[in-house]
Order: sequence, then C-alpha cells, then structure tokens
Amino acid sequence: MRLRAGVDLGGTKIQVVIVDDEHSVVGEARRPTPTSGGPEAVAEQIVQAVREAAATADVEPSELVGIGAGSPGAVDARAGTVAHARNLTGWEGVFPLGPTLTEAIGPPVHLANDVDVALDAELALGAAKPYSSIIGVWWGTGVGGGIILDGKRWDGRGAAGEIGHTVVRLNGAHCPCGRRGCLEAYAGRAAMETRARRLAKRKRTSLFAIMEKRGRTQLTSGVWAQALEEEDALALALLERAVAALGAGVASAVNLLDVEAVVIGGGLGTRLGQAYTERVSAAMAPHLFVPENPPAVHTAALGDLGGALGAALLVLDRGANTKAPPRQARASSSSR
Amino acid sequence: MRLRAGVDLGGTKIQVVIVDDEHSVVGEARRPTPTSGGPEAVAEQIVQAVREAAATADVEPSELVGIGAGSPGAVDARAGTVAHARNLTGWEGVFPLGPTLTEAIGPPVHLANDVDVALDAELALGAAKPYSSIIGVWWGTGVGGGIILDGKRWDGRGAAGEIGHTVVRLNGAHCPCGRRGCLEAYAGRAAMETRARRLAKRKRTSLFAIMEKRGRTQLTSGVWAQALEEEDALALALLERAVAALGAGVASAVNLLDVEAVVIGGGLGTRLGQAYTERVSAAMAPHLFVPENPPAVHTAALGDLGGALGAALLVLDRGANTKAPPRQARASSSSR
Repeated sequence: MRLRAGVDLGGTKIQVVIVDDEHSVVGEARRPTPTSGGPEAVAEQIVQAVREAAATADVEPSELVGIGAGSPGAVDARAGTVAHARNLTGWEGVFPLGPTLTEAIGPPVHLANDVDVALDAELALGAAKPYSSIIGVWWGTGVGGGIILDGKRWDGRGAAGEIGHTVVRLNGAHCPCGRRGCLEAYAGRAAMETRARRLAKRKRTSLFAIMEKRGRTQLTSGVWAQALEEEDALALALLERAVAALGAGVASAVNLLDVEAVVIGGGLGTRLGQAYTERVSAAMAPHLFVPENPPAVHTAALGDLGGALGAALLVLDRGANTKAPPRQARASSSSR
Repeated sequence: MRLRAGVDLGGTKIQVVIVDDEHSVVGEARRPTPTSGGPEAVAEQIVQAVREAAATADVEPSELVGIGAGSPGAVDARAGTVAHARNLTGWEGVFPLGPTLTEAIGPPVHLANDVDVALDAELALGAAKPYSSIIGVWWGTGVGGGIILDGKRWDGRGAAGEIGHTVVRLNGAHCPCGRRGCLEAYAGRAAMETRARRLAKRKRTSLFAIMEKRGRTQLTSGVWAQALEEEDALALALLERAVAALGAGVASAVNLLDVEAVVIGGGLGTRLGQAYTERVSAAMAPHLFVPENPPAVHTAALGDLGGALGAALLVLDRGANTKAPPRQARASSSSR
C-alpha cells in the first residue's frame, strides 16, 4: 500500500491526513499551530502531527511515499522554502520547511500555497470536479483565491488569484493589506473582527461573549456561525456587508473570465456553508454582465480536510509542482 | 499578390484597409456609419467602402482572398451573423452580415467581435507583441476588454473580457448597461458625456462649444482631447475620475490574473495616448497587490487602424475563428 501524507498548515491549526491510492483518509491528526518559537517550532509540531497521523494509519512515517504541505506565505516549491508567512508568528524570513521535514521524517516533501492546494483538491476530488474553468474564493481570515482555466491552475507570473484584492469601493475601507476598498477589507474575517471590535463600543452584540465562552481570543468562524444562529444583529449586519462585497468582487471576476463555476471555500465559506454560498450567488446576480448565463456557485465539498487532501495530491503531482515558479508573498490574503 | 480586406465597423465610422502578405496597408477607405436604414444600410455602406479601398489598392474587390470584419454586438462567427449591435441604429435583431457582404462582393467574409480583433492586431503586430499574457482595455464609448493568456485569447464561455463591468464602487454611479458602479459608468465616453451634460448646467465648460465648432452632436474623443488642451476644468475633472476608476478596475484584473502587460486602446485610449496611459498606470499602482512587480502598460500601437488590421488577420486565421463559439452580446461595452 502506497500511503501519502498531506499537511495543511494554517494560522490556528495543523491538519494532517494519511491517504491511500484512492484518496481515502486512512489516518488523521490535528494540532494547534504554535504561537511562539517561530518556524522551527511550527516544523517540529508538523513532524509530531505527521507521526501521530501515521500511527493512526498503522504505517511508519519513513515508509510514506511522500509528504505534501500547503502553506501560507511565499512558497518556493523547488527550494522547499516558505517566506513571509505573516499569519504564523515569527515567520518573516525564509525558512527551509521542506528539507527540515524530510530530515526529521524521511520521505520527500512537496510544498505549495495553501489556497492553491485546497482548490486543486476541489478540482480533483470535490465540488469543482465537473468543470474546467473555475474561480476559487477562499473566504477566511483573508479572502484568497485561485483560478483554474482549461483544467489547469493559472498562476500568471506567480501571483495570480488575488481576488481578495479586487477594489469593490474606490477610496473605501482600509484593508489589512494596507490598501483601500479591497474585497478583503469588507469580507475578510480579520477585517470584520476589527470592525466588530470598534462597533461593539456602541452596539450590543453577543460576538465577544460567545468568543470568551468558547475559550477563544479571536472571532473564529465558529464564533460567527453561532452568533448568526443567535440572530445577533451586529454579526448579521457585518456578514451582509461581507456578502455584498463578495457578490461584487466575484461577479467582476466572472465578467472578466466567464468561468463555468465558482467554488467558495475557506474557514468562513466552509463553516457558513450552503446558505451563505446561496447568498453570495444572489449578491453576484445584479452585477453579472450576462445574467442569463451565470456560473454555477458551489460550497467547497471537502470541508475542513480540503487543504490536507490537496496537499497529499502534491506527492502525485511532483513533476508539475517542482516546475512551478515561486509564488509571491500572499500572506495577507491567506484564508485561514 | 494575395490581398485581404479588413473592416472595422464602428458606431461613427466604417474603416476599411487592404493589406498584403506583410500586413502593409496598400489601400484604405473610411465612411461614416449610416444612422438610418438599419443593418441593410450599414452593409451597403461597407460594400461601398470595400470597393473604394480596393480601387485605391488597384485590385478588383472580387479578387480579394477574403474580407475580415470586426463588429460590435453579438457576433456568431460560424453563421456570419451579428445581433444586438446596439451602438448601431436599428440593429436589434440578428442580421446575416457575412453572407450579405459575400453576395455583394464575392470573397468569403470572416466576422469577429470588434474589441477582440483590435486586441489580436496588437498581439500580432502592435504593442502586445512581446507578451504572452495581456489584458486589453478598449477605452471608448464604453470600456471593452480582452484577455490573452499563454498567447491565446481567453473567451470563457463566450463572454469573457468585460473589464468595463468590473464593480469599482458598490452602489455607485449608474452604468449605461443598467447596473451600478461599473468601471464603464465612470470611464466610458457615453457615461462621461451624460455627466458632463448634467454638470454643464451649473459649471462652466468649453466641451459643448468645442463639439459644436467641430460640427459634432456628441463629445467625441477629439472633443475631449481639445478640451484637455484648453485645460477645461470640467473635462479635466471628469477624466481624472475616469482615470481613477480605470486604475482600480485594471489593477483588480491584474491582481486576479498577474499578466505581463496591459494594452490600452479604444477611441479615447488611442486619442489621449501615452500621457493618459501613464496616468492610468499611476492610478493602478496603489491597488496592485504585488506593487514591486507591476505589468508593463502600453498604449495600443496601431492607433485608428488597429481594428481594421485585426479584422484583416481573420482571413488568415479562418480555422480558429470558425471554431470560436458565438460571442455574447456586448454592445454596451463596445469601445467605439
């Protein structure tokens, strides 16, 4: 049995899966992402998580055919390095994640951008499977994206897919990226939290009470989802604003590329699920240039495991990925 | 000598070129587009213009290898029909332009969308030649666009390239397309004229005096250019607004596709030339997600003849064009 590992390195958690030739998950582990100790501590935690997942699959880590890892930041697949992973504490410089993991575990390691691998997984195994042209919208801490054209990822000069930095309002809200009016400034979870904290000074909201009850220090997707269930007015208003921005930004991308399908994933996209996918689709409608022929709009089908499953695909796809140019820094748009 | 004709069918004029195997212009004619008589009158005027151009090239029209024509509206290349060419008076339905021209002149006729052929000409012969990934922005009556990826046009499901209908301001200005906040609502010449007429009631401007002096009934690109030379405050302000919208909309498209180059053509783009191309490039800068690696930004190099030269290319490219799916109606975004 040829088993592969897939690692999804996120800002809050490290998710590992062990999969077989049929992409079935035969082992799994999840650990919190260390918030101190820099890239070395993160790498060590990944090593532990891979070992733990391998144990649940009853395989020696050294016997894995390969390990794929999706990471935020600027990934250089050829060199096996990750730089500027600003969502991860103390990861500003260039760190040789691939070689470090190979040295500790044994098998070859293949790296790629986290949003790219999640979209690749949806294309190979999930909601994007029936389509050959797709815009992926990874709605989470930021709003990341990916483009599939003619069945292949379109990387441009290495930095394509930044749908989160579509300007939806000239001179509009300040974006975590430092610019103004970006889609992410309205729909990214980080930007929404900043606004919620400001508005909470003069509006009633249960968002922060829910956060504390869950033992969180940030408004996670789960916190937002629960606030919506409780019909918290501020949460509803901020999500309405996010949906309006997503509708305009994604429709603009559709007007430009006229793709067959849009797949909405990421922490918030997955957590809020079909109901919000439908709301985004409805918010796109008034902006579509050919409204009688809208693209299909789907929620990412692989849920929380999409990133890790996509990372495991990197092991199969080694040739293609070692040829890929280094991806530009895109930490601010990471969806985790 | 194998000569071809290229026809650029615009809202105000019909431009015809006769070219040789080296794409050199050996004959030329220009006629106003009829404003009454519907598609039949337009077709008859094209026939006269082709005959006139052929005469200047000393060739019998029936001896032309083929005739290419770029048209606004929904072009069905296979059927040779044009529908919904709303920029042309009385052209709401489907008209068999190709067969009509072939019957009158003789040679086979190849049709395509006007913005597409103009961008193809820039790719084959003009400013886009050194690049394989390009966003074309056709800035005129509307704001049309085209996408070249891996050296080939990306049509999506037939309607790609509508950069003019990128939402640059949620709930913003009314666009001639009926939607709100589109780039074209700020930068399209038609929208700019509507606003100029409204503002002229309370602001001084020489725009309409220049228009009348030139014997025009609309604010043509030449009128705008002259008003800028005269430093007309209203013209300057409206163009500044247009440039800001172009900067945001084009930068958003670059963030999504990370192309090598942007080519700015169309009536206004060509007329205002390098100075305004540089202003658009400067207006893009604050919105680029990877500002240290901006795309090259060029003015379309073929000027006024680009559309006709590109149409003549259709004759060479016959196989590719007959395979193309019918292009969706895009009259409101036509750049002429």
